[in-house]
Amino acid sequence: MRHSTTRRNVLRGTVATAALAATGAAATGAHADPRGGAGPNIGILLYDGYSLLDPTGPAEVLSRLPDATVTMIAERRGAVLTDTADVAVVAERSIDEVDRLDVLLVPGAGNRGTVEAMNNEALLRWIRRIHCHSRWTTSVCTGSIILAAAGLLGGRRATTYWASAEYLQSTFDVTYLPQRYVRSGKIITAAGVSAGVDMALYLASLIADDDTAKAIQLAVEYDPQPPFDAGNAAVASPQLKERALELLAASQV
Amino acid sequence: MRHSTTRRNVLRGTVATAALAATGAAATGAHADPRGGAGPNIGILLYDGYSLLDPTGPAEVLSRLPDATVTMIAERRGAVLTDTADVAVVAERSIDEVDRLDVLLVPGAGNRGTVEAMNNEALLRWIRRIHCHSRWTTSVCTGSIILAAAGLLGGRRATTYWASAEYLQSTFDVTYLPQRYVRSGKIITAAGVSAGVDMALYLASLIADDDTAKAIQLAVEYDPQPPFDAGNAAVASPQLKERALELLAASQV
Repeated sequence: MRHSTTRRNVLRGTVATAALAATGAAATGAHADPRGGAGPNIGILLYDGYSLLDPTGPAEVLSRLPDATVTMIAERRGAVLTDTADVAVVAERSIDEVDRLDVLLVPGAGNRGTVEAMNNEALLRWIRRIHCHSRWTTSVCTGSIILAAAGLLGGRRATTYWASAEYLQSTFDVTYLPQRYVRSGKIITAAGVSAGVDMALYLASLIADDDTAKAIQLAVEYDPQPPFDAGNAAVASPQLKERALELLAASQV
Repeated sequence: MRHSTTRRNVLRGTVATAALAATGAAATGAHADPRGGAGPNIGILLYDGYSLLDPTGPAEVLSRLPDATVTMIAERRGAVLTDTADVAVVAERSIDEVDRLDVLLVPGAGNRGTVEAMNNEALLRWIRRIHCHSRWTTSVCTGSIILAAAGLLGGRRATTYWASAEYLQSTFDVTYLPQRYVRSGKIITAAGVSAGVDMALYLASLIADDDTAKAIQLAVEYDPQPPFDAGNAAVASPQLKERALELLAASQV
């Protein structure tokens, strides 16, 4: 196949010119030290068995904040497998290497991954230590259960994965709210999996401003139009809930 | 912090019982060979500079299809950096190791990554070879430009990232449709970044059925409620578009 690539920019018109200008600016040094920029230092905790979209949806959004750095962090550096064990994201830093973060995000996992993380005292200690100085401490899905296990949610309102709401409320001193995300002081918890994207846009508006968050929403073309209207557990049938959890469990290792 | 983990299941009630039963079934061997199950064999092509959510959103959704395997594939095995160079997903297979796929998904990238992939004849040849036998050949964002560069979109209708629509139409024999996803025969293209999640649910309904796709939507709690309504380029102001592309370009290496 032949096609012209002499026009090297696949973005259009005047906006493309602006984008290229911005690229030029970045190339002059703004990103020379990707771990030491002037923007927010965002850390996402990976642990065995997390659900892939929980960290990656917010990472996509938050990485577009001006001068932001997003770092994947785990107990040890290296590839960390998701709940299906099919896919791995690389943790570039170990928890021992990270003392301070502007934003901490704890993703959720399947049952095994969540329970293991809840019982991993090294992870919980690190979460508490980072939380002491963080600007924002956040979670997606059952990540809020891990925050609760670390002792951060006592007496607070929070959300979590729909199927884990009863567990969160009955195990910890937490009031569950069935919302996409819940802010309680500097802690923001998101509902299941995809809710992390909504939460991240909200967080972007808090870190920067509404206009920046809206521009990020357009940058990731987040104008959701799912082909079905089946994502709200509050109105889902018991049969659909059971099928959803069966599919999850069968896909997880 | 002390908390009871004697109740080892963070999912609730009767649905939890079903989920645990399914987990038990999986443990007996259904996932013994994660690359050789009876379900769809889904391959996602990674290349330097892809946008993180493009492959990971659909992977989250499609991995919940019964007996599905999701494999990240790249020119060479190993970690593949995103457009920000902050995050890497591991390619478990090289293109030389993969001859057949039920589903191929080509993600999009920033300008640099897209142009490099368009000019990578080894990648384009592999895409054409896989497409010969695939059940579904799909793309997210500027991934459709890569499909077009491989010669797969000639005379077809397709979608792409909003800022790349003009480039797609003027460079290739393609009719751009401003939709979340466009099906043309066995090719399905999605709009920018987050549109891959909508497309993946549609694809799940084609591979399985509507009820399964709805259960997956609930499994990932995809009941989108972004805090702003700014994701539709068709109604965005020129200023917002310019700002979106500036943020993208500044975040990309």
